Amino acid sequence: MAAAAFEISSPVGVIAGGGAMPFAVADSLKARGLDPVLFALKGACDPASAERFRHHWITVGQLGRTMKLLRAESCKDVIFIGTLVRPALSELRLDWGTLRVIRRIWAAFRGGDDHLLSGVGRIFEQQGFRLLGLKEVAPDLLMPQGCVTRKMPDKDASADIARGRELLAALGPFDVGQAVVVIDGHVVGVEGIEGTDELLRRIADLRARGRVRAAAGRGVLVKAPKDGQDLRYDLPAIGPRTVEGAAAAGLSGVAVVAGNTVVAEAQAMIEAADEAGLFVTGLAS
Amino acid sequence: MAAAAFEISSPVGVIAGGGAMPFAVADSLKARGLDPVLFALKGACDPASAERFRHHWITVGQLGRTMKLLRAESCKDVIFIGTLVRPALSELRLDWGTLRVIRRIWAAFRGGDDHLLSGVGRIFEQQGFRLLGLKEVAPDLLMPQGCVTRKMPDKDASADIARGRELLAALGPFDVGQAVVVIDGHVVGVEGIEGTDELLRRIADLRARGRVRAAAGRGVLVKAPKDGQDLRYDLPAIGPRTVEGAAAAGLSGVAVVAGNTVVAEAQAMIEAADEAGLFVTGLAS
Repeated sequence: MAAAAFEISSPVGVIAGGGAMPFAVADSLKARGLDPVLFALKGACDPASAERFRHHWITVGQLGRTMKLLRAESCKDVIFIGTLVRPALSELRLDWGTLRVIRRIWAAFRGGDDHLLSGVGRIFEQQGFRLLGLKEVAPDLLMPQGCVTRKMPDKDASADIARGRELLAALGPFDVGQAVVVIDGHVVGVEGIEGTDELLRRIADLRARGRVRAAAGRGVLVKAPKDGQDLRYDLPAIGPRTVEGAAAAGLSGVAVVAGNTVVAEAQAMIEAADEAGLFVTGLAS
Repeated sequence: MAAAAFEISSPVGVIAGGGAMPFAVADSLKARGLDPVLFALKGACDPASAERFRHHWITVGQLGRTMKLLRAESCKDVIFIGTLVRPALSELRLDWGTLRVIRRIWAAFRGGDDHLLSGVGRIFEQQGFRLLGLKEVAPDLLMPQGCVTRKMPDKDASADIARGRELLAALGPFDVGQAVVVIDGHVVGVEGIEGTDELLRRIADLRARGRVRAAAGRGVLVKAPKDGQDLRYDLPAIGPRTVEGAAAAGLSGVAVVAGNTVVAEAQAMIEAADEAGLFVTGLAS
């Protein structure tokens, strides 16, 4: 893989939000002999897991402090990873380093989430850091191409996948959700800011109420990165919970773009899919 | 209005689903001296209201019987109006007239809702009936151009409306929902098969949980017909409930395409909007 040849400067600064991913990234770095330093976002990053690594606690508004700490730790390469609810402006306890660049942050806030993250990312880059993505830092956490489960998509599922990809491509310019559910050629649900888990719960609910009439075991959750999305910040992610949600929604399987999708707890996800009789497949991008 | 010059053949066959619209159409026809005959769909059309008009009860599968009744009533012009949950095939009690055209219906079922309705519509047309839309039958029930409320969309709301229309145009080819919620330039929700009321409930819920951080009174529900949608069958609709949902979701107002949107209980809707301080505006198509 080309990513293997990519040279990373150790230690790596891991700006760590919520969920399991920041720790999976840190473990992946360590497995390859690189040192992670976590910059754990208060209120998002899990404190118990952060203890396993060298770490500093930061808040969202502390760009100045974060960059000072990164320099003190000799981190040149930085990755943003994990979940983060868009903060209310009132929650931001801005430091002086942040105030110096507040105009640019403000501009970032006015766009979608992509703009916010890439706006903050640009500020780090202007201060001499290199922003990396999972492709460079932990390529082993990305979805491979092809089907990873016992069940494979059949002809109908493949048609639903193609339809879903077309729709997501059309939504690309709008910085909106990255997922869609297609059943027997019908687009039944589109993800907004509520996220994939809630989209799947909605489909399960519509099915329970008889609004989705297709037999169980039909239809596909399709996830793809947004068009022009900066893949260093916001890769679509799947994991055991996605598979459980898809099973509860009565779908046939899950299709994501290979290489551009993070897999959380891959082994657990594949086992959950095999148990539920769902497929999980990585599409060529 | 050009529609006023349109000559309608009386009596008019009103294939009546659920909700208040079939009766509003029948009243509108009577007000203009035309005779409605309701073909009330069992399980969907309200029996008490149907009593107010000459009517026959039909089921979804009875195309043959319906066409025979239409001919017996000398109805040449027909309108499909009201809500109808997509029937399960097992619920369809097909009659012989339906069985003769079953292949075409089956083809219609495999596409989206548009295809289903226009597929059935084409079958009526092949049998010599003329399928009309609200524009011809009851133009007084359609949203006019311009703002109908005391509150008007401000500059931010207008920008959200423009964004929403762009997104709906992009979704057009996919036969999916007709509504989107945009707040401060962010697309926060996209309608799938769940419908507009549920989309608005979702936004209200996301706001209650702090996932939508914008101040109350910001953002717009934008509704538009799908691209290439056959407007005789499935016009987007708004009414008092839409306004109440938008208010509960903390939005600034509702924007729909003038002439291509049905307004249920217009006076009640405008009063609800004025009371809640929301705008409702009809956009040039």
